[in-house]
Amino acid sequence: MTRTFAITIAYDGTDFAGWQVQPGQATIQGTLQHAIKRSTKLDVNVTGSGRTDAGVHALGQVASCRFPTWTASTDALSKAINSRLPETIVVTEVHQAPSDFHAIRDAIGKRYRYQIQVRHQRDPFEHRYRWRLRRAVDVAAMQSAAAKIIGHRDFSSFESAGARRKSSVRDVRDCQVLPAADYETSGHLAIEVEANGFLYNMVRNIVGTLVEVGYGKQPPEWIDEVLGQKNRIYAGQAAPPQGLFLKEVYYRPGFEPV
Amino acid sequence: MTRTFAITIAYDGTDFAGWQVQPGQATIQGTLQHAIKRSTKLDVNVTGSGRTDAGVHALGQVASCRFPTWTASTDALSKAINSRLPETIVVTEVHQAPSDFHAIRDAIGKRYRYQIQVRHQRDPFEHRYRWRLRRAVDVAAMQSAAAKIIGHRDFSSFESAGARRKSSVRDVRDCQVLPAADYETSGHLAIEVEANGFLYNMVRNIVGTLVEVGYGKQPPEWIDEVLGQKNRIYAGQAAPPQGLFLKEVYYRPGFEPV
Repeated sequence: MTRTFAITIAYDGTDFAGWQVQPGQATIQGTLQHAIKRSTKLDVNVTGSGRTDAGVHALGQVASCRFPTWTASTDALSKAINSRLPETIVVTEVHQAPSDFHAIRDAIGKRYRYQIQVRHQRDPFEHRYRWRLRRAVDVAAMQSAAAKIIGHRDFSSFESAGARRKSSVRDVRDCQVLPAADYETSGHLAIEVEANGFLYNMVRNIVGTLVEVGYGKQPPEWIDEVLGQKNRIYAGQAAPPQGLFLKEVYYRPGFEPV
Repeated sequence: MTRTFAITIAYDGTDFAGWQVQPGQATIQGTLQHAIKRSTKLDVNVTGSGRTDAGVHALGQVASCRFPTWTASTDALSKAINSRLPETIVVTEVHQAPSDFHAIRDAIGKRYRYQIQVRHQRDPFEHRYRWRLRRAVDVAAMQSAAAKIIGHRDFSSFESAGARRKSSVRDVRDCQVLPAADYETSGHLAIEVEANGFLYNMVRNIVGTLVEVGYGKQPPEWIDEVLGQKNRIYAGQAAPPQGLFLKEVYYRPGFEPV
């Protein structure tokens, strides 16, 4: 009997060409499907809640997959897959889901984390996981600007060309600029954004725009103007991929992988 | 006129075949010399305070190098070299040193840091920088054992075969087992060892031995017995390279790169 599972995955995306299977390239989806095949002898398609780009990481990506047959426990499945994965990818949880669970369709929201390091000199141990800003930023101004992102709005100005969606309206439920407790010495800063859904490159475009405010190139009120234009050319440049982490995917009750 | 510099370097050693130049392999020394050549057009030999093995990192490796000619500032030299280095290596400081300064001969001590993560599940973001222990350890027992390492002793039991030194006696000035402030949740633990000099693989052999005590396989008093045997076969297995960082190198007054 077919069983559907919700699989939670964390990965360091640095050395992968993104989530989606691409011929001749190492991808997260391809590596996962290969690990499932090697450990269970089953050809299973793994559907992620969304595609992450090359160099983008995940703390809690969720994928749905249907197994034509699996009689052992979810714990055994998790162990089997992990035994065939490289050190850079880990299955953190496996839960049995309703038979029609679909990781994209059933998602009701996502939270991303974007990591920054304000530091003149490069840091060999953080460059895979943070965007380095060489100059000081005004954190309070960035926080004021971030508050203006929150709401039910048309986010066309933060949508990169590519896979266009029918509507560019999204509910951004939270947008915070969070300096680390040791920010004065480490320069570590994170921006977290939560919404019911995201347009292509939306978080990286928001972050790039908030950094322009941080650099004092624009005041926080500029965000309202950018949103009002509904045109990508008015926002700041996209932040690079290595700072971005898909932190959590939310599902409606009954479809939660818990 | 020839000028001698003391260069401080930090690096992520994961993707390098160690410090020392080896034909056909990416090494830290080779990459540095190449960056100096590209940025200054000078063929300069860079002498490190010691060779780090493949996969071992440095927070403060020190190297001496003699420039046949260099008229600009040390700051300009640092910027020039950094502009040609990959993200995984950074020159953090450059100081002019006495003309006969030699990074190995003049060193009077070193401090190493070894990073551990106690965690059942792999962590994609820490595996380059920590040795993962799957089972809980008795930190207090490890701390008692570490205190027994300190002193003027013959460390033959912690010396791996390879480059044997004339004497196996060293002064270990400090040996600490340091759980992180958030150890209960992160499982992050560090072992720091400071000595006037180290034998081949000494820190990794000490760490592997302390972990056997942490696992309860041996009591802290076992350390005295191991030291007394003066034979490598009595100590624990060497810890893997990825947790090891050369943290600091100490020089005598007048030769300090400050």
